[in-house]
Amino acid sequence: MNTRRAFLQNVTRSAIGIPLLSLQSAPIISSLTSCAEVADGPVLRVAIMGLGSYGARVAEAMKDCKRAKLVGLISGTPSKVTEWQQKWNIPAANCYNYENFDNIKNNPNIDAVYIITPNALHHPQTLRVAKAGKHVICEKPMAINAKEGQEMVDACKAAGVKLLIGYRLHFEPNTVEIIRMRKEGELGKLLYFQGQSGFRIGNPNQWRLDPKLAGGGAMMDIGIYSINAARYMTGEEPIWVTAQEVKTDPQKFKPGVDETITFQLGFPSGIIGSCLSTYNMNNLDRFFINGEKGFADLQPASGYGPIKGRTHKGELALPHPMHQTLQMDGMAELIFEGKQPIVPVDGAEGVKDMKVIDAIFAAVKSGGKVPIKIA
Amino acid sequence: MNTRRAFLQNVTRSAIGIPLLSLQSAPIISSLTSCAEVADGPVLRVAIMGLGSYGARVAEAMKDCKRAKLVGLISGTPSKVTEWQQKWNIPAANCYNYENFDNIKNNPNIDAVYIITPNALHHPQTLRVAKAGKHVICEKPMAINAKEGQEMVDACKAAGVKLLIGYRLHFEPNTVEIIRMRKEGELGKLLYFQGQSGFRIGNPNQWRLDPKLAGGGAMMDIGIYSINAARYMTGEEPIWVTAQEVKTDPQKFKPGVDETITFQLGFPSGIIGSCLSTYNMNNLDRFFINGEKGFADLQPASGYGPIKGRTHKGELALPHPMHQTLQMDGMAELIFEGKQPIVPVDGAEGVKDMKVIDAIFAAVKSGGKVPIKIA
Repeated sequence: MNTRRAFLQNVTRSAIGIPLLSLQSAPIISSLTSCAEVADGPVLRVAIMGLGSYGARVAEAMKDCKRAKLVGLISGTPSKVTEWQQKWNIPAANCYNYENFDNIKNNPNIDAVYIITPNALHHPQTLRVAKAGKHVICEKPMAINAKEGQEMVDACKAAGVKLLIGYRLHFEPNTVEIIRMRKEGELGKLLYFQGQSGFRIGNPNQWRLDPKLAGGGAMMDIGIYSINAARYMTGEEPIWVTAQEVKTDPQKFKPGVDETITFQLGFPSGIIGSCLSTYNMNNLDRFFINGEKGFADLQPASGYGPIKGRTHKGELALPHPMHQTLQMDGMAELIFEGKQPIVPVDGAEGVKDMKVIDAIFAAVKSGGKVPIKIA
Repeated sequence: MNTRRAFLQNVTRSAIGIPLLSLQSAPIISSLTSCAEVADGPVLRVAIMGLGSYGARVAEAMKDCKRAKLVGLISGTPSKVTEWQQKWNIPAANCYNYENFDNIKNNPNIDAVYIITPNALHHPQTLRVAKAGKHVICEKPMAINAKEGQEMVDACKAAGVKLLIGYRLHFEPNTVEIIRMRKEGELGKLLYFQGQSGFRIGNPNQWRLDPKLAGGGAMMDIGIYSINAARYMTGEEPIWVTAQEVKTDPQKFKPGVDETITFQLGFPSGIIGSCLSTYNMNNLDRFFINGEKGFADLQPASGYGPIKGRTHKGELALPHPMHQTLQMDGMAELIFEGKQPIVPVDGAEGVKDMKVIDAIFAAVKSGGKVPIKIA
């Protein structure tokens, strides 16, 4: 289907009452098409699914991308689509809702869909996008358990599309520098990782506190940063976990929604990881790794920036671009040229984090040490 | 017994072959006696038992004390006694060895004995000093388990002497200020304590790595700082503990000597504590407490100084006197005037830490949650 036909079709739909689409000008369409022809190589034309606050941040960050561009929208809220269309100059032909987005398969002007929706929706939505033949970028957590995550990996593989997880920190300069130092032995034999991930969550009625949509609580949303960092900071996969849960506000944090969990990860070389995940505290955002020759400290470690890095050699003085700008350019390079970031961002990486989360929840229940099999 | 008689008695002993005692001049004795008459109140006349490196630090710090003075020595190494006698102008009448120090009961010029010897010796030595009718200041850990600790408390009570534990940080200005802030509600409802206590221990032949003398490994020596801080920073007593041990060097860290233990403490109000104790890592010395209204961070937290304190309001700019100077003056005020420091330093306080250590070792063995009964 060419863009003109799509345009007309969408106009027709709009006229019969599907409110998500609006009129647009032909010149915009040609400017979109030309994006794929810039000097640095092809540009990844991205539709964002889920126009919430994080989606808005990604859109903002993509303004500065050289290799990625926001070209499409998927939302269940017509007024948001209208607003975003105006702000980002998005043609109606590239706008979808949750009923009709399978039609994206007929849209040659969209390469990938960035899924930024509640956790429990990632799995079915990824399967639909893969079936539509588009690359999937999916926010973390990729799913609500490892089984779902693996199904997403398998579905994308079968459809011949990439599945990437929104691990923006894998492109963040301080993080990348510390991983380089660790890989090159500058910290010596590693002994300890510490991760503190948390914030005090507000509105008790948001989807993040609804176990059906969130698939959990703080662990899925923010604890996963410490899990992922424990793996990329150490360069090892955990082999066991112990975990302890505390719930001080059972009214706000319903059954199935974890408030605060401390967990410990054992690694093959003897490294021990000690982590905190919480929806009940601010002032917590730290990754720390300690080796025989030195240490590295990120604090703040996972916020939207600026990240501050410090090692035994002193402060890291690195630039602070928007993480999502780096991420989307990096993902374009990965999709088009197969260029791998220092730590993977593919679906398999996401499944590994989900396996750790599964084990943490099992360890909270059992009260004992739970083995983890990542490989 | 007056000082003259004691002096003569000691001279006599010296003459019959007890090698730790040597001749001295009468003017030194009168200068000692006059210590008890300074304007600020009586001066605590202290004998140090155990002339190792920490004993030397305490002696150095006492130079600046207004209410405490080093007046006696107890050691098994005659050459050390001679050296210390010269350095600190200590009369032979106030010098003892481990065979004869029970005779201190006949020495009216010594008020208290500061026991700075290997952990496993604290219990029998405290019992002997108490029996000699002298106040006991005992280094931490007070003993190698809570049972021994309680016996020491009971023995000192029965003898009518004070038992104080060398908790120097209870007098440290940054620590005291943060405890004040917490008590006055400036941090709001508390939620989390983090303690990291460790260093990379050197010489594998030292007593600290001998389970018979140390009664354990890192936990007894350095982990106890995180335990004690977890209690005074939160103002609560833990009700459960979980713990995980990692040993990467079983050659250096023999059975019964813990290398690295992570442990978690649950508190009645829902505060969770996450701690690390290790003899295998440097760059770890932090206490952090997080509340609904703010946080407090000590880093370094327990070294000999300077301690650095930071809260949500900014850096703490407090003086950095030697901790042991403050401690010994504070302990004199406690002994003579009953003036309590912001956190107790008595034997009962020490027993509480030992109960937590007992529970941590039990939790390492069981792999599960172990209840703690402090009260």
